[in-house]
Amino acid sequence: MAKAAIMGYGTVGSGVYDIIKTNAEKLSRSSNGEEIELKYILDIRDFDNHPEKELFTKDFNDILSDGEVSVVAEVMGGLHPAYEFTKQLLEAGKSVVTSNKELVATYGEELLAIAREKNVNYFFEASVGGGIPVIRPIHQCLTANNIIRIAGILNGTTNYILNQMIKNGKTFDSALKDAQAKGFAERNPAADIEGHDACRKIAILASLASGKTIDYNDIETEGITSITLDDVKYAAAMDSAVKLIGYAYFNEDGTVYSIVSPMIIKNDSPLSGVDGVFNAILITGDCVGDVMFYGKGAGKLPTASAVVADIVDAVKHRVTSKKIFWEKQTDNVMAHKDSRKFSYFIRTADNAENIRKIFGKCEFVDNIADGESAFVSEPLTQSEADEKTAELRNVITKLRVMD
Amino acid sequence: MAKAAIMGYGTVGSGVYDIIKTNAEKLSRSSNGEEIELKYILDIRDFDNHPEKELFTKDFNDILSDGEVSVVAEVMGGLHPAYEFTKQLLEAGKSVVTSNKELVATYGEELLAIAREKNVNYFFEASVGGGIPVIRPIHQCLTANNIIRIAGILNGTTNYILNQMIKNGKTFDSALKDAQAKGFAERNPAADIEGHDACRKIAILASLASGKTIDYNDIETEGITSITLDDVKYAAAMDSAVKLIGYAYFNEDGTVYSIVSPMIIKNDSPLSGVDGVFNAILITGDCVGDVMFYGKGAGKLPTASAVVADIVDAVKHRVTSKKIFWEKQTDNVMAHKDSRKFSYFIRTADNAENIRKIFGKCEFVDNIADGESAFVSEPLTQSEADEKTAELRNVITKLRVMD
Repeated sequence: MAKAAIMGYGTVGSGVYDIIKTNAEKLSRSSNGEEIELKYILDIRDFDNHPEKELFTKDFNDILSDGEVSVVAEVMGGLHPAYEFTKQLLEAGKSVVTSNKELVATYGEELLAIAREKNVNYFFEASVGGGIPVIRPIHQCLTANNIIRIAGILNGTTNYILNQMIKNGKTFDSALKDAQAKGFAERNPAADIEGHDACRKIAILASLASGKTIDYNDIETEGITSITLDDVKYAAAMDSAVKLIGYAYFNEDGTVYSIVSPMIIKNDSPLSGVDGVFNAILITGDCVGDVMFYGKGAGKLPTASAVVADIVDAVKHRVTSKKIFWEKQTDNVMAHKDSRKFSYFIRTADNAENIRKIFGKCEFVDNIADGESAFVSEPLTQSEADEKTAELRNVITKLRVMD
Repeated sequence: MAKAAIMGYGTVGSGVYDIIKTNAEKLSRSSNGEEIELKYILDIRDFDNHPEKELFTKDFNDILSDGEVSVVAEVMGGLHPAYEFTKQLLEAGKSVVTSNKELVATYGEELLAIAREKNVNYFFEASVGGGIPVIRPIHQCLTANNIIRIAGILNGTTNYILNQMIKNGKTFDSALKDAQAKGFAERNPAADIEGHDACRKIAILASLASGKTIDYNDIETEGITSITLDDVKYAAAMDSAVKLIGYAYFNEDGTVYSIVSPMIIKNDSPLSGVDGVFNAILITGDCVGDVMFYGKGAGKLPTASAVVADIVDAVKHRVTSKKIFWEKQTDNVMAHKDSRKFSYFIRTADNAENIRKIFGKCEFVDNIADGESAFVSEPLTQSEADEKTAELRNVITKLRVMD
């Protein structure tokens, strides 16, 4: 019998509770016959009408000081006190599993080091891609590969908005309102639409894949707020779609190029067909080539099912750390912004002659809006693209085309 | 230091060798600092010019009797002597990893039981989907879910052929010749195009997901040899594609419905866009909803990378069996063929009036070929579909539409 606790009884926490209760038989079979018993639920709110109200506590120390509790699900979100709680639990020799991307992206290095030292586990499958298996596959299944590139649709809200623009011809504002009405976007949608959520997630994936701490503050992040209906129409005309991509490229010299940005994705990429609130992570390994993981990136039960799978894995590895970790490097691990070239899709009020003079070879696209030219450049570094674009008259749109 | 052996130095075996040599540093990091040293390669052929020719042996007993060898990759293929070798190795307390779908589908139950009893591991990630992580994700990451359905494009050869028909308007025969010329299809392509390869793979996935032995001989299997260019054109007109699907549905009463058959896949399914030699496995869990795993389902390095990941996992779990298994049931585990309803796409020389009289409500599709009617029925059991179709004059095509 393994005793567990849940910290935070919000959407994901109540989902974890539901799954442990309803799929108990399946879970016991999965954890080699060992039953998982929930002993505490930590939440500052009252749940007097809950069928198991006796499980609830407002005192973190109940969990920390209970030697029987071997695994704790931290699904409270936010940095504090999630960080302090997690640290104390790991130091006390308990495994912690989490869906808290903010915490993993910010303190993952330190928390994973403590877990390693204490021979327990800190698992975070649910922090990226909700219920989609991606952390464990990268760590275990692709372990024979040197990972070359990760490109992910990591945020369902923005993908839903872009999809509404692409499929239903909505403007950005109207698609955002629709997403808010359906509960897919928060009232303050900044973290999603400005790319910060995707940024934390690609930082976690890049850290995991490289074994080196990738600070999300070092990742250039651009959201989708400037994407217009005409942009998505141009993309469609180019047999492509606009997607917000969390991107990391692992250079042979050990540095990592990473960016979050809307990109033009050609329809022959499996990422282009990822619709609605779905997420997908495309990973290129030196042996396996392209593999992609697809599914719902958010939601109560999908996310909770990943948390519960981590609980089961922690129960099965109670006395062995799986030694997932990343470490700070003395050298700067971030590659220069000009280390990676992209073709750019550009819309400008300038004319074809000037464009050719500045950009040389480029591919023109039939223009959709009056009084403008649209084209795709040859692969350019960011500085080259910036310099050349600055020479153009009135640039309307500049978007990377994913390689 | 963990000592390993490879049995069979064909395509996959030489890929395993290459990866262990070239990615040694990465592998050592993955297996908690423990280096993996290759001690033997078993093959009946001579490799006198191989840079490490001293590793080669023709005597299986060299590996079996060497107490230092803790993990063996069986990549020789075929049932015999792979079965006898694997059994003896497991009984001797060595872990075995394999890409041999034939062996896992036929003797998996017995070999997994021996592994469990001897507290070693029998891993088979590479047996389904080549390098795509799918076995371990089902077993570990989706462990909190009751799996409801698995639908997979499990055979790259047939997917390439269908894709050539869809995208390039080739006939089946011409697409098959093209696949053979490119090395994607064997000279005797029966195992692929008649669905037997996909059948073994869905049997493995269904056994793993249910914990019950699913005998591939019990799975109704239909290949793609009767699919015509007109069929794929009709599918395109219905905003769909024809794909060969390995399908398993897990009923609440514990029985499993399974079939291998070409199906009409609507374009809003992530399976429809899976092109060329790629594979994809769509899994529906009661908590996570739909997740999909995508990648190259065959090929030297993709498949070998999955074998090597299994070697690393076996090294990390040298003294603990991961207890993956399935068992024979006393009751019949296969659901009746009429337990699952599908809509059917039917082409017939009969007229609309007769069709409506026999099928009731149905959706007609503008006909592409002269002198025929094409329609999609309401969901029907297989017996209902057979009975009704028997009443039609001259049935040209009858294809399930995937739910």
